[in-house]
Amino acid sequence: MDIKGFIPQLSIDCVIFGYKNKELKVLVSKLSLPKELFSLPGGFISQDEDIDQAALRILKERTSLKDIYLEQFKVFGAAGRKNNAILDFIEEYKEPVLLGEMELDYDWFFKRFVTIGYYALVDINKVKPQKTILDDHVDWYPIDDLPPFFMDHTQIVEDALVELRRNLDDKLIGFNLLPETFTMRELQELYEAVYDKPFARNNFQKRMLSLGVLERLEKKFTGAANKAPYLYRFIS
Amino acid sequence: MDIKGFIPQLSIDCVIFGYKNKELKVLVSKLSLPKELFSLPGGFISQDEDIDQAALRILKERTSLKDIYLEQFKVFGAAGRKNNAILDFIEEYKEPVLLGEMELDYDWFFKRFVTIGYYALVDINKVKPQKTILDDHVDWYPIDDLPPFFMDHTQIVEDALVELRRNLDDKLIGFNLLPETFTMRELQELYEAVYDKPFARNNFQKRMLSLGVLERLEKKFTGAANKAPYLYRFIS
Repeated sequence: MDIKGFIPQLSIDCVIFGYKNKELKVLVSKLSLPKELFSLPGGFISQDEDIDQAALRILKERTSLKDIYLEQFKVFGAAGRKNNAILDFIEEYKEPVLLGEMELDYDWFFKRFVTIGYYALVDINKVKPQKTILDDHVDWYPIDDLPPFFMDHTQIVEDALVELRRNLDDKLIGFNLLPETFTMRELQELYEAVYDKPFARNNFQKRMLSLGVLERLEKKFTGAANKAPYLYRFIS
Repeated sequence: MDIKGFIPQLSIDCVIFGYKNKELKVLVSKLSLPKELFSLPGGFISQDEDIDQAALRILKERTSLKDIYLEQFKVFGAAGRKNNAILDFIEEYKEPVLLGEMELDYDWFFKRFVTIGYYALVDINKVKPQKTILDDHVDWYPIDDLPPFFMDHTQIVEDALVELRRNLDDKLIGFNLLPETFTMRELQELYEAVYDKPFARNNFQKRMLSLGVLERLEKKFTGAANKAPYLYRFIS
């Protein structure tokens, strides 16, 4: 990675949400450093790249997905926002520090950074997490069992979750977390995982159907034809 | 203005909303250049300054107000985002170009900039627009009669208005645009100006009172005691 082509002191950090087994999950990178540091998937912006393009590139590197629901949600720019955890470590460490195979460029990397937070919603079944040169590995973590992040990444996840909750109804974006077809119960479970609270079944179904964005398909094959639930699909 | 202490290629632009005579207004700067160019009040971020602090400083410079309702709403970062209008002008112009009394530092000023958009809501009666070294003058313009802005500032205002509409109910922020006490009719006129559509009087009053954030005060003195409307105050 040649850092010379990037805008200095500006980065992107992505909160990639997935959903599986009734749990909301976040994609987390363990950085490729001789110390255990956890980070959100992030990166920098080329001089000749739109910021949204840069975010899509960073997401594609980690998920292999092209069509991702992606939203810029907040900029984090505290005055003291530096890679202190890495800096501290470097002072202890005696050898040149490699990030992946790249020797860290101190002058560039350890200035104060302003970071643009994006969140993304992906169908977890379609994602095979990919590590880049920056990552030791990349894994899904449940939202209520995240590792201790470095810098302000815990705050970034919390703010992304607030924004996801705010937008789930307004912008009908939850469907990006589900497979193409789903039962009403599965949709309700997703809402319960995101908002971390139960919904009353009848009200939930009524509200969702009233939005006019669900197409009812055939019944789901379960073997027990009578009680089989209907499948739905999102129509935009 | 010494640009050396600022983060390069990163700026802040502020959409400062005010409200008067049933009109939503925006504070606009005519830049202090020998060409007529209109801009949102903006500025840069010191290396040792939080981005929110920088936005507050920029707002205080133009409005003299300290306690401003301020919200970061979007980052604008197209790849080709440069001060082209000024660049084009400089190529025509034969002498060194001064912005205020400052000779423009081409290397710094005409790189591609990413800008963080903030919007602010102010009580227009408390604001005396102040010009800085960057401004020839600073004035209020009605939202539907804005001057032709340079760069993407027209887009920035449009996106700020979308966000203001989205937040007016959710976050009960409209009161920042009004004097401390107001009649129900004045509140309704504000909503009508922001959303650019009429509201039914009875429904509007019912909805506002149901929010539980309005304290009813004495009747407004109008001389005609019978028909005088009540005054309200926002209780947070």
